[in-house]
Amino acid sequence: MSFEFIQELIVSNQTKIVMLILDGLGGLPLVAGGKTELETAHTPHLDMLAAQSALGLTQPVMPGITVGSGPGHLAIFGYDPLKYQIGRGVMEVMGVNFILQSGDLAARGNFCTVNANGQLIDRRAGRMPTHIGQELAELLRKIRIDGAEFFIEPVKEHRFAFIARAPDLDAELSETDPLKVGVEPLTVTALRPGAEKTARLLNQFIAQARQLLSAQKPANMILLRGFDKLPVLPTFPELYGLRSAAIAVNGMYCGVARLAGMQVLPVDGDTPLDEFLTLEKYWKDFDFFYLHIKKTDTCGESGDFAGKVGAIEEVDGLIPHLLALEPDVVIVGGDHSSPAVLKEHSWHPVPVLLYSKFVRPDGIPKFGERACLHGSLGVLPAHHIMPIALANAGRIAKYGA
Amino acid sequence: MSFEFIQELIVSNQTKIVMLILDGLGGLPLVAGGKTELETAHTPHLDMLAAQSALGLTQPVMPGITVGSGPGHLAIFGYDPLKYQIGRGVMEVMGVNFILQSGDLAARGNFCTVNANGQLIDRRAGRMPTHIGQELAELLRKIRIDGAEFFIEPVKEHRFAFIARAPDLDAELSETDPLKVGVEPLTVTALRPGAEKTARLLNQFIAQARQLLSAQKPANMILLRGFDKLPVLPTFPELYGLRSAAIAVNGMYCGVARLAGMQVLPVDGDTPLDEFLTLEKYWKDFDFFYLHIKKTDTCGESGDFAGKVGAIEEVDGLIPHLLALEPDVVIVGGDHSSPAVLKEHSWHPVPVLLYSKFVRPDGIPKFGERACLHGSLGVLPAHHIMPIALANAGRIAKYGA
Repeated sequence: MSFEFIQELIVSNQTKIVMLILDGLGGLPLVAGGKTELETAHTPHLDMLAAQSALGLTQPVMPGITVGSGPGHLAIFGYDPLKYQIGRGVMEVMGVNFILQSGDLAARGNFCTVNANGQLIDRRAGRMPTHIGQELAELLRKIRIDGAEFFIEPVKEHRFAFIARAPDLDAELSETDPLKVGVEPLTVTALRPGAEKTARLLNQFIAQARQLLSAQKPANMILLRGFDKLPVLPTFPELYGLRSAAIAVNGMYCGVARLAGMQVLPVDGDTPLDEFLTLEKYWKDFDFFYLHIKKTDTCGESGDFAGKVGAIEEVDGLIPHLLALEPDVVIVGGDHSSPAVLKEHSWHPVPVLLYSKFVRPDGIPKFGERACLHGSLGVLPAHHIMPIALANAGRIAKYGA
Repeated sequence: MSFEFIQELIVSNQTKIVMLILDGLGGLPLVAGGKTELETAHTPHLDMLAAQSALGLTQPVMPGITVGSGPGHLAIFGYDPLKYQIGRGVMEVMGVNFILQSGDLAARGNFCTVNANGQLIDRRAGRMPTHIGQELAELLRKIRIDGAEFFIEPVKEHRFAFIARAPDLDAELSETDPLKVGVEPLTVTALRPGAEKTARLLNQFIAQARQLLSAQKPANMILLRGFDKLPVLPTFPELYGLRSAAIAVNGMYCGVARLAGMQVLPVDGDTPLDEFLTLEKYWKDFDFFYLHIKKTDTCGESGDFAGKVGAIEEVDGLIPHLLALEPDVVIVGGDHSSPAVLKEHSWHPVPVLLYSKFVRPDGIPKFGERACLHGSLGVLPAHHIMPIALANAGRIAKYGA
């Protein structure tokens, strides 16, 4: 898909599109010959919607490739995930709900342990308790360097997110983690001309961190890696003329949605019901809503088949809230598969349902992996979903006379 | 698919992948409304495997394009057959089991007949008996030119494979076959600067061949065409980190497998059973096995519908040998279709089955063209099969955070 091509055909109207993403939706049977999580779930509302929809299976990048949440979401939002990439540092920072500004430099940080000679003896400081990481982060926040601002956000155990804010930062920098013990952490070096100033700034920060932490236990030093900045994406308002909103309770998904130009709506609570109530509340104010459900993926990644089934059923029970709003287009899908039996993301195509008054319904009264296989969308690249949704919303003009 | 992209995600483990290729597998019904060869065959073992597999149909290059064995195999091995090409001279040389070295110049040769003035009167010397071609090849082997080595391998009737080995050979040369009688064979000329030395060498060879053969009948001259050298492919060990082996009894398939960096295993005998016993014998030593069955294609090309059915049933009977080895991933497919009713290769998509413990089974208990149409792999480019196989083998890491 070429954005330029679609963008020229976009027309504006009063229609509303809802994209409901059940994270890690796709699954696998628990036993040979059995059903997947979605096939097992009792989903009368989704099944009824499926009967009036076009069904298919989305492929985030290409056959056989398992994606992380970043490329998985970019794809379902319509971006080619091989062309647009979000670095690991940026994902880490988004994950702690920090709102990155354009130009900020993000990195993943580790608290680590060095000996009296400064040589690494534990790159993860024994995976120390999270509360110690929080205390050490407080210490690092005292660091002051003229002309720059720093933000330290604890993640979990020894991990923290690092953000530097200053003019003209360059992310083409070498990492400080030598990936082995018995040697000193590496110095940050510029990987291209122009990045030297940023390298010096970070080395100054690291030197101060070393002093501040020197008396601490078990961690007395830091490692920084995955330097990057926010990528620049053409936004939903620019591309599609859609006033777009995101409803999600996890920072990472809010972050990716923000990148796509969506306004992140405040959710009062953190349950799927709270999210659907947020959708109702802001219904009049936007053309496009992305609503993200995390629990399906959490259960998939922890191997909790029944929990994932339950999470799907919980969402199914909320579908009447959505339909009562009379949306013009509804997409129900996922960013990737997370089969409980694998306990991680997987490469399997993800079931998707696209409902509108103008869809050619496949007449398949079941939303499930094997049912979707017979749908008219076929197995398609995830980034093809948005143009189909826009067409069903009457938002793409005819191409050619 | 970009190899660079996949290559960066490859991880190593102990899994084993078997790719069983029934040459020319895809077929057509003999009579309207009938079944194809594969659908006709009684294949209880393949059907049982199909029920636990993902099914689909592979397209070697693109819809409507019939491929030869070279591009058909490159595609199923994961190479884009429009990007990587094997010349006709190289295929001819591989077909006689000659092991080409990098830098060798290969060509297809014809013994032909010229009159007293050197003008062609028969470009194929009356399609003389193969044993005469063998005798004439012996004569040509006497040719000696300083700084170069030549290999002449009889093929069939008037055809032979020609190999020149010398430093800095260049294959950008014009052919000597004028494609009509009544004129002299053409001189080899350089088609780009730098190829002149090779052209001179070949013209010297041809001049000596003319003298050596002058008293022979019915052939007294040679024609050379299809000059080329081995293409350079990124190999399976390089690309995928797979210790890879090929089991095939025909030179051409061994040759293509060698190009992909596979070790060609010696087969004691030439039946499918002998090939499966070779698989057992070397099971511990490799991560990936390509096992090639020729008879399906031979029968297809000779119009022997029942023979092709029988060849498929013979392979089906050997599937328990394969499964007893407990492979992690099994691919059963073909390089192209060869319907008996057409007596040649065809453009029809080729049925494929991909089994692993982690596949999402389609639950289709039949391996056949029409059954595969309902499978989750859909109709897919043949070169997408390898990434899916690698994913199922746990050999591709997640893309992006």
